[in-house]
Amino acid sequence: MIIRSSRPEVIESPFEELDGNITPTERFYVRDHFPQPSLSLDQWCLRVEGKVRKTIEISYEDLLAMPSKTICATLECAGNGRTFLVPPVSGVQWQLGAVGNAEWTGVPFSAVLDRAGMSADAREVIFEGADRGEPEANGKPVPRGPIHFARSVPVEKAMRDVLLAYRMNGEPLNLAHGFPLRVIVPGWYAMASVKWLNRIVVSDKEFGGYFQTTDYAFWTREFGDSVRVPITRMQTKAQIAKPQPNERIPNNAHYEIFGAAWCGEAEIRKVEISTNGGTLWNQCTLLGESIPNSWRLWKFAWHTPTSPGPVTLMARATDSLGNSQALEHHHDCAEYMISFCLPIKVEIE
Amino acid sequence: MIIRSSRPEVIESPFEELDGNITPTERFYVRDHFPQPSLSLDQWCLRVEGKVRKTIEISYEDLLAMPSKTICATLECAGNGRTFLVPPVSGVQWQLGAVGNAEWTGVPFSAVLDRAGMSADAREVIFEGADRGEPEANGKPVPRGPIHFARSVPVEKAMRDVLLAYRMNGEPLNLAHGFPLRVIVPGWYAMASVKWLNRIVVSDKEFGGYFQTTDYAFWTREFGDSVRVPITRMQTKAQIAKPQPNERIPNNAHYEIFGAAWCGEAEIRKVEISTNGGTLWNQCTLLGESIPNSWRLWKFAWHTPTSPGPVTLMARATDSLGNSQALEHHHDCAEYMISFCLPIKVEIE
Repeated sequence: MIIRSSRPEVIESPFEELDGNITPTERFYVRDHFPQPSLSLDQWCLRVEGKVRKTIEISYEDLLAMPSKTICATLECAGNGRTFLVPPVSGVQWQLGAVGNAEWTGVPFSAVLDRAGMSADAREVIFEGADRGEPEANGKPVPRGPIHFARSVPVEKAMRDVLLAYRMNGEPLNLAHGFPLRVIVPGWYAMASVKWLNRIVVSDKEFGGYFQTTDYAFWTREFGDSVRVPITRMQTKAQIAKPQPNERIPNNAHYEIFGAAWCGEAEIRKVEISTNGGTLWNQCTLLGESIPNSWRLWKFAWHTPTSPGPVTLMARATDSLGNSQALEHHHDCAEYMISFCLPIKVEIE
Repeated sequence: MIIRSSRPEVIESPFEELDGNITPTERFYVRDHFPQPSLSLDQWCLRVEGKVRKTIEISYEDLLAMPSKTICATLECAGNGRTFLVPPVSGVQWQLGAVGNAEWTGVPFSAVLDRAGMSADAREVIFEGADRGEPEANGKPVPRGPIHFARSVPVEKAMRDVLLAYRMNGEPLNLAHGFPLRVIVPGWYAMASVKWLNRIVVSDKEFGGYFQTTDYAFWTREFGDSVRVPITRMQTKAQIAKPQPNERIPNNAHYEIFGAAWCGEAEIRKVEISTNGGTLWNQCTLLGESIPNSWRLWKFAWHTPTSPGPVTLMARATDSLGNSQALEHHHDCAEYMISFCLPIKVEIE
């Protein structure tokens, strides 16, 4: 693991070690914003308030006693791959490893909200973590004083998809991944999957929190005007795990290119490989079955060039909605959503 | 007039010259964000689109032929009084003169929207000016490329209060004040009163434009979380016009302190003067009649101290909703809404 910061903890996983559908918990990347809160189960509870019929508090035991559900979901940091941007931009200098796929067990958010009762004017659900601190400005306007990490999801998406997870890969959630309770928002970048959840506010407005409007937000166009919108759905993306950047590869040999591909709220339909800078594309083999909101592993049997020299590999995924990857980063995305065809340079020996 | 920038034009009026209820057009402050667009009336039209039953275009002649309405409205720049902040903050270094009160004649927005027909899901009205450029970053995230100046108003407020003005103080609007058409949003800071209006978009979402979410926005608290919200209503505020800062005043004499007071979507009920740093307050005389959304002039007969030395004067307004002025700037407001009791230092001779 590559430790990029220790407090708050920011740890990248070595993507070249991808070897199965599930990322082991100890190899799952960590992206905290504030120091990890230490929570004891006898004091912790989940409070649900705002536009609900009654404010409720649910204990950890209560949650465990509710019907559970297990899903697979790929979580990717919205800044994953940032080192591929030219010129460099500020933010955590992730390579390929701020992404992982895990099995999450918990209680559907809808079951929790049913206990509180949703008001008719509910529009968004704000998930707030127990972690708290002053955000780094990095050239952005910051609120004064400490804030909690918090993110919102429209009520329809929350009711349909969101899981409140207390287990990860069959074990109780550990502290780094959000013990005792983590929101899982399948198909969205992982900033929405709030860790150390202890408060849910149902709101009749669009949430204006720092991590919603200022950080983890971008400029897009609406009615011809530039508008600032929160980052939500994951962009369609394939990543090459093997070979890894700068790997030395024999000439005139068989080499199995291997990687994973994912997207947001759709299914991966196709992955292609280019070995010549994006002019020609070769179809890869998708492995296993398609699992909703979970990445799809893929491989490609490459016959390497007969003469030595540098080669740039690129993978390109296409999803069931027809979304595919561009050859260049979209400037509107600025320092986030780095989903263009990432060039992996290798050396043929 | 004090020219603070010539392109874009930023001109402050000398507030000490306040001498009547209406600010003459040539003494009305100007705060542009981009160069003034030159619009010819035979090419100009107002387009109304978005969540409407049909997109329409209205010519200047059409507007003039519609029933007109004349209102008084005080416009204050959200950054007026910025030089009173300690420590200094970035932005236009306004003293007291980014405020004025004028008579505006035009067509109620509701009459224009009635022609297009509002959809049931309309929530906000985006007013867009013809002025266009790249905003200065000043440490804020900016969209890439040029944008129009644009601001939104909730549909209820727009239908009730907004005037589309083509005359100011009885004359056709001049270029600096928005020729041919300017939005007037009574009771709100003037960034909402978009100049050079040529496009209205009715939207079913909260508008995320740069001048709505990033500039002319501030941090407040909602459900205990820090949230970024647009600046809207004017804060209750009294300003002293006479004496002006650093004025030399005879001792043991009668001096008439004179100024104006205004607020947002309420009425001024009381203005008080303190000559001792805010310990004792003396009631002022309100002049004339209360006119909705228009400032109220006031005066106070001051018997000046018998011995020479510095004196700090402060005025404090209270409105019909009970809002009054604090003795210090509220830190959430950052570089905007400078509505604390501004200290005016004078010298008794």
